[in-house]
This record gives sequence, structure tokens and C-alpha cells, in this order.
Amino acid sequence: MDKIKVFSPGSITNLSCGYDILGVCLNNRGDEITVTKTANKGIIIKSNDDYNISSDINENVAGIAAQALLKDISTEFGFEIEIKKGIKPGSGIGSSAASSAGTVFAINQLLDSPFSQLDLIKFSMEGEKFVSDSYHADNVAPIILGGITLVRSINEIDVINLPSPKSLEVIIIRPNIELKTSDSRKVVKKKIEIEKMVKQSANLGSFVSSLYTEDFDLMSRSIVDFIAEPNRRILIPEFDNLIKISKINGAIASGISGSGPSIFSLSNDSIVSEKILKATTNHYDKLGISYDGFISKINTTGIKILESN
Amino acid sequence: MDKIKVFSPGSITNLSCGYDILGVCLNNRGDEITVTKTANKGIIIKSNDDYNISSDINENVAGIAAQALLKDISTEFGFEIEIKKGIKPGSGIGSSAASSAGTVFAINQLLDSPFSQLDLIKFSMEGEKFVSDSYHADNVAPIILGGITLVRSINEIDVINLPSPKSLEVIIIRPNIELKTSDSRKVVKKKIEIEKMVKQSANLGSFVSSLYTEDFDLMSRSIVDFIAEPNRRILIPEFDNLIKISKINGAIASGISGSGPSIFSLSNDSIVSEKILKATTNHYDKLGISYDGFISKINTTGIKILESN
Repeated sequence: MDKIKVFSPGSITNLSCGYDILGVCLNNRGDEITVTKTANKGIIIKSNDDYNISSDINENVAGIAAQALLKDISTEFGFEIEIKKGIKPGSGIGSSAASSAGTVFAINQLLDSPFSQLDLIKFSMEGEKFVSDSYHADNVAPIILGGITLVRSINEIDVINLPSPKSLEVIIIRPNIELKTSDSRKVVKKKIEIEKMVKQSANLGSFVSSLYTEDFDLMSRSIVDFIAEPNRRILIPEFDNLIKISKINGAIASGISGSGPSIFSLSNDSIVSEKILKATTNHYDKLGISYDGFISKINTTGIKILESN
Repeated sequence: MDKIKVFSPGSITNLSCGYDILGVCLNNRGDEITVTKTANKGIIIKSNDDYNISSDINENVAGIAAQALLKDISTEFGFEIEIKKGIKPGSGIGSSAASSAGTVFAINQLLDSPFSQLDLIKFSMEGEKFVSDSYHADNVAPIILGGITLVRSINEIDVINLPSPKSLEVIIIRPNIELKTSDSRKVVKKKIEIEKMVKQSANLGSFVSSLYTEDFDLMSRSIVDFIAEPNRRILIPEFDNLIKISKINGAIASGISGSGPSIFSLSNDSIVSEKILKATTNHYDKLGISYDGFISKINTTGIKILESN
């Protein structure tokens, strides 16, 4: 195989109760990444997007992740990476993770898969570190493994695939503002009162249980954020109103996706999902706020190979 | 029914990753509580133990919990409560919770069960507040509901019954020192670094998952305490050595039970459980430290009625 094209999907993370550790792989929105073997060693990036992303391999997450991979193996050839971005950077649905993870996934395929999925998570995290100034795998893990994932540890990478209830859907509404992950992380306090930690972790444990039992009422009670949302909500236009509108229209729960500004809602009924999307986008329409809005089933496959030859 | 005798079992809590929220109901060790209707209204306590527990209804957790219950209902008669303690106070296996929960359970039976299990948890928590200076339901919830429980919330009481893997056993070794819960709580810091919170909650989520999947390797990796154990371990004689000995002998995990000084280990093999108990008690024997040591299956029933008439 000399050339491969993959679809690397978006993801939502945190789900309010799982700061830095929970993630969900989406079906809709994603990067198309084409990687081609080149005669000369090294990496070349060809960006193909509307976002002026750097093609400097030390400034682009795909280049950074690819270099991390290539440190661990020697090859007689190089790679040209072409990225067609389908996820706006700074949207809170894992734009950088899609590029990093998709790239290392594709390179691994071209090398006949010497690396495990956990290795690919490790390499991708170098991209995340570059854009957010912190190592975290909550976006890259679900993109690589598919489904809903819990990152137990990033020191020795340990990720648990949680069950994905079949009826579960994600409704995303993203106002057209850019929120840098590094800035959004700065508003989260460095120390947490132990009472809040107890509540937050109880909710995480309950959320995990709700996935196994498909108890959507419990899921609804569990998706509450005592840690990041109280400070991050002010960064997102009309946040409180959108949450209210989503709840009124039947959302199981709503919250900030990743570091924002995307807002996620969960529903277990596709008619309800449509209602939530319509009501929230109507609200932005009325106020003249531009946005991207969509509904996604949970993607249990993760990155998908589109073409290879 | 005018008289009832119940067995109210011990419990272990925290399990390292679930500070104040996780609890396990034990089979072995427990209080025998006999409650008899009396012609005169009010509560009388007859203590029947070796521990000089007060029979003043305002100083004894059973009296405090019973009064909390009786505030919510009017009766034409009173109650005599006789408590034969089988759990040493200050042992970290829920001595006060057994007395509180057993008493309100028994009174509720004598009243033909006007109160739900969640109500009984609420009343019992008044006893916990008295001895530990904080409301928490991690001991009383598993005693009342049986099995392994996760307390999602104590404001509006919300408790999840987690699965109890059939092969799972608890090995307890308790050095003969008394550790007051209120003192043991004082060594836990009031604020937690967010990185520790993330790790601790990831472990809790993973532990919950491991109960559903019976993945004992994951359970082993998840039972780690970044919050309480680092400060509490010095309160328990030979703590680090007992943990090492337990691990060498095949424990899935070990840690401080509740606020200590009891140390719990988990095993999914009864031969391994015996080995752990023998090796840890031998260690205390050699050093001349007196102790109580026992093995318990998980008690999925909770409080048991022994006699009623």
C-alpha cells in the first residue's frame, strides 16, 4: 500500500462529569486525510482547508504526531500528508485530535500496522499537547477506538471502551466563534474543593453505570459539571438559554463539548434530537448568531479507511 | 409485630477510588439489634456491648437515627432498642452505620414499613453526622440496600446498586487500635489538585466498569487512592508492609477500609483469600500486634431479620 485516504471523525469530550477523561466518537464532521509514501524520507504537509492551518510540520498537529510515530521506527521512505479539514479548529469537537489521530492511523496502515491502538493514542497526544499545552487523550481515544471511551491513565495509557447505547444520539450546536483550548483551560481552577471532587466523581461513576444499564434518567442526573462549566459557560454566547431550550425539548442532558464553544445535548429518540436541533438553531437564528448545527449517532468504528492502493 | 431482632452487617467504604461514595456490604461481623414496642412513647436504649457505648439517646447513633425517623411519623407507642455490638467502634468497617441503619430498619418494620430504603438511608445519616461531623451515606447505603453501592448524591438521596461479581471476596485485617472517623477525616486535605481529581475520578469510573465486565485486572489498576490514603496510611501500623504482603499473595487490590484502621483486600478466589489472611495476620503475630482478621463474601441482602413476633 502506497497511499491511503481516511475519514477521521470529530468527538465530544468531558460530557460534563468526565473532565479530561470521557469522550464520544461522532459520525458527522471529520477530516479527510490522505497520506502517500514518498521516495524521500521525512514528512510534507499539504493543507487543504479554509482555516490557514500551517503546513510547517512543527506547527501542525498532524506533523507533530507523525514525527512522534516516526521516532519509534525507521523507514526507507517519507510521507506526504494532505489534510482536508472538515472540523473547524477551536470548535470543541476535537479538530486537532482528528488531524493527529487520522494521520498516525494512516501512516500506521502504510507501514503494515506495527503500532497498537494505544501507541497511536500516545503519538496523537503529542499533537494535543502542542495545541492545548497539556497531555490528554479524551478526544483521540474515541476517534481511534470508536464509541464512548474512558481514559483511565495517560502515563501508561489505559483506555476503557464503554458501552454505546444504540438509541443514543448527540446534538451539537457550535456558535461561530473560535475558542482556543489553551485559553479555555486557563479558566479552570487548579485546585478543587474536596466536596466538589466527591460530587463530580460520583456523577462520573453513575454515568458509567448508566451506559451499562441504559438508564437514561440516571444519565440525565449524572451529567452535571462542578469543575469546568461554572467558569467556561460565560465564554459561550447564550449558553444558559441554549441549555434550557434543549432541556425543555427533551434532552437527556446538555453541556459544553470539550473546551467549547460547541454545546452538546444527548437524546435517545431521533424525533427529540430534531426538535432540540431546531429549537436551539432557531434561537441563534433569531439573535443573528451564526452557527453549525448537526445530529450524530455514536460512531462505534472510529477512523474509517475511504480508499487505499 | 411487637418485637424484631435484626442482624445489621459491617461494610467497607471508599475502596481507595471512591472517597465518601463507594461501599460494600459484608457478611461477617455485624450488630444484633432487637427493637421492642413499649407502651410509653419515646426511645430507650439498652446497650449490650464491651465498648461502653452511651445509652443516652442523644449520644448514641441508634438513638439519633431513631429520633430522625420518629420526627417524620407519629406513633402511639415507644421503642426499646437493645444493641449487641459485633463491630468494634472506630474500626473502619461501619460500626456506627450498622447501629444506625439496623435500628431504623427494625423500627420501620415494626411500623409496617411506611418508609422507603432511601428514607432509611437519610435517617441513618444523622447517626453518621454525629460521629464523623459530616453527612455521608457510603456505609449506610450498602447495609440497607446490600451489595456494592455508589452514592451519587446525599442532598436528594440517590444511590446506585452496582453489580457484585459472585467470586469477589473481601479480606479484612484490623489492628486493635481505635481511629475516630472525625480524626481520620481531618488528615484529608480540603482542596485537591485538579490533576489528582482527574486521576481519582478516572479510577472510579474504571472501577464501576470493572464491576459490570468482571475485569479484575482493570479493577486492580483502578483501586488507587490519590486523596485520602497518602495522608491516612501513617495512622495504621505496618500499613505499607501489609499492602505489599497482600499483593504478593494475590490480592486484586488493597487499601484502607473507610477511615481506617481496618485494611481491606479484594480477591476473586477463596484459596487466595485464605493466603492473604494468613500472611497478613502472621505479620502482625510476629510483631505482637493484636488484630481481628476475617474473610467475607459480598452480602447482597443487607440487613437480615433474625426473629420477629
